[in-house]
Amino acid sequence: MGPGPSPVPQRVLRALAAPTIGHLDPQYIAIMDETCELLRQVFRTKNPLTFPVSGTGMAGMECVATNLIEPGDEVIVCINGVFGARMKDVMERCGAKVHVVEAPWGDIFSLEQLAAALEEHPQARLLGIVHAETSTGAHQPLAGLAELVHARGALLVVDAVTSLGGHDVRVDDWGIDACYSGTQKCLSCPPGLAPVTFGERALTRMDARKTKVQSWYLDVSMLRKYYVGGSGGRFYHHTAPINMTYALREALLIVLEEGLEARIARHHQMHLRLRKGLETMGLGYVPKHSLHSLNCVHIPSGAEDAVVRRRLLEDYGIEIGGGLGVMAGKAWRIGLMGHGATIRNVDLVLTALRKVLH
Amino acid sequence: MGPGPSPVPQRVLRALAAPTIGHLDPQYIAIMDETCELLRQVFRTKNPLTFPVSGTGMAGMECVATNLIEPGDEVIVCINGVFGARMKDVMERCGAKVHVVEAPWGDIFSLEQLAAALEEHPQARLLGIVHAETSTGAHQPLAGLAELVHARGALLVVDAVTSLGGHDVRVDDWGIDACYSGTQKCLSCPPGLAPVTFGERALTRMDARKTKVQSWYLDVSMLRKYYVGGSGGRFYHHTAPINMTYALREALLIVLEEGLEARIARHHQMHLRLRKGLETMGLGYVPKHSLHSLNCVHIPSGAEDAVVRRRLLEDYGIEIGGGLGVMAGKAWRIGLMGHGATIRNVDLVLTALRKVLH
Repeated sequence: MGPGPSPVPQRVLRALAAPTIGHLDPQYIAIMDETCELLRQVFRTKNPLTFPVSGTGMAGMECVATNLIEPGDEVIVCINGVFGARMKDVMERCGAKVHVVEAPWGDIFSLEQLAAALEEHPQARLLGIVHAETSTGAHQPLAGLAELVHARGALLVVDAVTSLGGHDVRVDDWGIDACYSGTQKCLSCPPGLAPVTFGERALTRMDARKTKVQSWYLDVSMLRKYYVGGSGGRFYHHTAPINMTYALREALLIVLEEGLEARIARHHQMHLRLRKGLETMGLGYVPKHSLHSLNCVHIPSGAEDAVVRRRLLEDYGIEIGGGLGVMAGKAWRIGLMGHGATIRNVDLVLTALRKVLH
Repeated sequence: MGPGPSPVPQRVLRALAAPTIGHLDPQYIAIMDETCELLRQVFRTKNPLTFPVSGTGMAGMECVATNLIEPGDEVIVCINGVFGARMKDVMERCGAKVHVVEAPWGDIFSLEQLAAALEEHPQARLLGIVHAETSTGAHQPLAGLAELVHARGALLVVDAVTSLGGHDVRVDDWGIDACYSGTQKCLSCPPGLAPVTFGERALTRMDARKTKVQSWYLDVSMLRKYYVGGSGGRFYHHTAPINMTYALREALLIVLEEGLEARIARHHQMHLRLRKGLETMGLGYVPKHSLHSLNCVHIPSGAEDAVVRRRLLEDYGIEIGGGLGVMAGKAWRIGLMGHGATIRNVDLVLTALRKVLH
């Protein structure tokens, strides 16, 4: 019940343990194609270029950054927590000149603030923003943002690591040009793959590159020949993490069997149940606009961070997250993600916290 | 029985399917520490900085290149097949000025040839060479090379993707400064992790960097705070592929239970058995100095590449590899890796080939 990895259902673990076949075996190609199609449904997109990057969530961020940025590009990055700051670091390593828009940790950005940033930096070729800031639990609304970004000829890049599969992530409706996530949060799959999706505008940007993508491993101009293919068929790029693909397919099937709407509603209900219990105990939320999948609360005075978390782990087998970055020692992060967002878990963690804090 | 992934034992698949716990859970840290220690034994090294990169084999190559190279560095890359050529591409993307030493595909490099290259490019800061060239089956001897490389103040970088766990890879004895591999070849683990090891000289080089590593995901200056730790404990960098680590630990335990020497001898014996059978059928090896783990033979005239491989797959459930790069349509690659290097498999593939070719 930390900030991820989330609990993984037996069905997914069983799928993970199926015999390893070759990455060019027609059976595997079919499994990969199905996985990409399921990912499109979960991302709510028709983007042909939707696939799992062969690494954990941060490889998804790096894949998007390294393919969309050329050295010298101006970009805008929105920072209200660790993952916005990390996006800045990653994009600077790609040679970008990063303009930062800041909000206090736990706050979100208003459309007005982002419009002003776009106005101030008319050369910005991209705006990067975190939908679900895992370090503070802040939930950033995205509707209406793409219109502002596209009016300036920039691309909208969204980090949906902690929201995909637990919150609404409407890539097409919201006009998101590139979006990345991880498997180990609301999809309830082990870590090891990073779902990404690139829209038409992003493709055009990549096709117009004057420089090679600095990462061979993450170079989409080659990856797309394997994941999407073309007139010449499929081309080998690197050996994909075969068994992780089995697991991701199974996890996505479970998501869609439950139904995206129902799953998102469940995350909402469990959040409300947890929130009520925490607030009754006097624990206050850090963010004003909280994620459902991640609940970040201030550590009450008198409670010792490490002691409480150790007792939860040792006595109850419950892992919750400590604070990250400036929140270290000041906040706890309770995940209600995917398979872990249940009444049983909510009531158990509330009971355990009540006992340990007394 | 292709060029990897190799068959994975049930024990490893069962380990893969164990419940996913957190990457900062003390239990997981213990599993990771044990995995790194087992990797040291298989790499035959005492290097503290030995760990699995969170990606497939090519992420290992990229990790080594991106950490050891700064823009403008001169390097020497030895090319006698696809993976040497790829190393050049990867290193150029890191900003290296690459000097190429070439040998015909299937050939290996002599110490004299490499000494001449080092003589010709005295500014080279690194020499990269492939121990096991998966595209041709060539097996490059490495003993004695480090002395030449170190005498020039350069580092020796070795690609051991297809040899680790099936051939002798003596990182310390051979003076290798950085070495990378993959899990899905002679270790008989699914793909998804790339074991790497860095020696003292490589660490010194990294510590003296003037520029940031261009990949955040693969930046060893941060990764080592998680995998090796320091006075302040372990620091979170990214979410590691938890379940893949379970699998790799189990695969390494199997390697060491068999014993490295015995395992290497088994690969040798199975290679000799296969070779005898193939040559009796008139199939000639491409490389003069062949790997045991990968057997690359010329396609006999009259045989149709795609038809033969499809019949092997459909009638016998055997996958062998086609040719890669300039060998496409001209060679087959038969893997005898790890769990797959058995009398049963050797005799089965020989029987199947005999039938299909008639």
